Amino acid sequence: MKHVNAPTIRVSEIFGPTIQGEGLLIGLPTVFVRTGGCDYRCSWCDSLHAVENRFRGDWEAMTAEQIWERVRALSGGNPLTVSLSGGNPAIQPLGELIALGHQDGYRFALETQGSVAREWFSTLDSLVLSPKPPSSQMSTDWAAFDACLEAAQSGPTTVLKLVVFDDADYAYAKDAAARYLNLPIYLQPGNHTPPSPDADDVIVDVPGVMKRTEWLVDKVIQDRWFSARVLPQLHVLLWGNARGV
Amino acid sequence: MKHVNAPTIRVSEIFGPTIQGEGLLIGLPTVFVRTGGCDYRCSWCDSLHAVENRFRGDWEAMTAEQIWERVRALSGGNPLTVSLSGGNPAIQPLGELIALGHQDGYRFALETQGSVAREWFSTLDSLVLSPKPPSSQMSTDWAAFDACLEAAQSGPTTVLKLVVFDDADYAYAKDAAARYLNLPIYLQPGNHTPPSPDADDVIVDVPGVMKRTEWLVDKVIQDRWFSARVLPQLHVLLWGNARGV
Repeated sequence: MKHVNAPTIRVSEIFGPTIQGEGLLIGLPTVFVRTGGCDYRCSWCDSLHAVENRFRGDWEAMTAEQIWERVRALSGGNPLTVSLSGGNPAIQPLGELIALGHQDGYRFALETQGSVAREWFSTLDSLVLSPKPPSSQMSTDWAAFDACLEAAQSGPTTVLKLVVFDDADYAYAKDAAARYLNLPIYLQPGNHTPPSPDADDVIVDVPGVMKRTEWLVDKVIQDRWFSARVLPQLHVLLWGNARGV
Repeated sequence: MKHVNAPTIRVSEIFGPTIQGEGLLIGLPTVFVRTGGCDYRCSWCDSLHAVENRFRGDWEAMTAEQIWERVRALSGGNPLTVSLSGGNPAIQPLGELIALGHQDGYRFALETQGSVAREWFSTLDSLVLSPKPPSSQMSTDWAAFDACLEAAQSGPTTVLKLVVFDDADYAYAKDAAARYLNLPIYLQPGNHTPPSPDADDVIVDVPGVMKRTEWLVDKVIQDRWFSARVLPQLHVLLWGNARGV
């Protein structure tokens, strides 16, 4: 039931609970709310079905109340962590959804590249900022990124997550870490076999992902970058590129 | 150079840096100090070379200073996290080692079953308590376990890590979590193909470990145990049962 005049959120998919496969909350049972639309087009994007305009017809305009009803149903009303991802979820009006969930004791994590700042960042429990390295073919606006950190203030636990495909990405990650010495760093080997947006494609090169993880571990150890955590995407190792798990 | 009368620590191996493969600090560069000797004999122990008395000849009696020299050399003097494991490292006198390392800005994590409490627990940065479930064939002395928590006080970040092989282990994990509602919980699928203590055996059933992980994820989700984290042993997935990585 859509409320008259209530602002709507473009939703690509809502699924879970399943475990978070990466970063700060790896292993934690989570419901994912993936919003549709993005201001970026990363070359290796693994969620193009939530990014490209040609999939706009698959996205549903939902009110915060409608989304909240769905999350509550999926989790049986038992509080857990809700991951807001995308696309870039920061381009959607999510403040009301977070407030609704907090009333029920749920927690919220947001994953964003840090290109768009929102006042409601300060109400999050976790904020994972993933500036995109050179291999993505995107360029980073550090002023916009700083604005995200300012918006978050000391509200959420804030961390940096960097995807690393190659030496240039690694250098970018080091630079990003040097800019924000107080933020914990998570490094993630890239998935060089991302799913096709047109099919629920489960073919993934697991040995290749393992090899990239080993490469990244070796690099961090040789470089004595002892404050960085290296974590592969667990969901890719466990379930390949399948959606909805 | 052994100091006259300095108490010695029985050391099975010192290796790293490599990334921590499990639990609270998963992914973090770590030097491991594995002590020799254990008051337990878990049926599926993956470190028997540091447990059984027949390997005593391989263990080195070292002073805290000697160990510290080795850790510093391995890490090039760059502070990182040192994991004290075993065997049961709690049966060794580790207080002085921790104090030495703290002077140099290093951090210490201890992994123990929680059968022996030590005053120096309160000086740790992280304490991972792993009470052993029924499949281990061990039984838990909860009074001794409580003494470990009392010794730690509010010094370290303290968490529970439970290995789960089957339904009985899962029930045990739920019971342990219910006893200590304030401690974060990490659930870890068991490695049913642990290494032989007599060989550096790298053969591990990775698909089997993946399957056990999926089983455990399903169980936690069905059961709506949303505060528990489920994490497989990354080092086993990446490097099998090889030692020293």
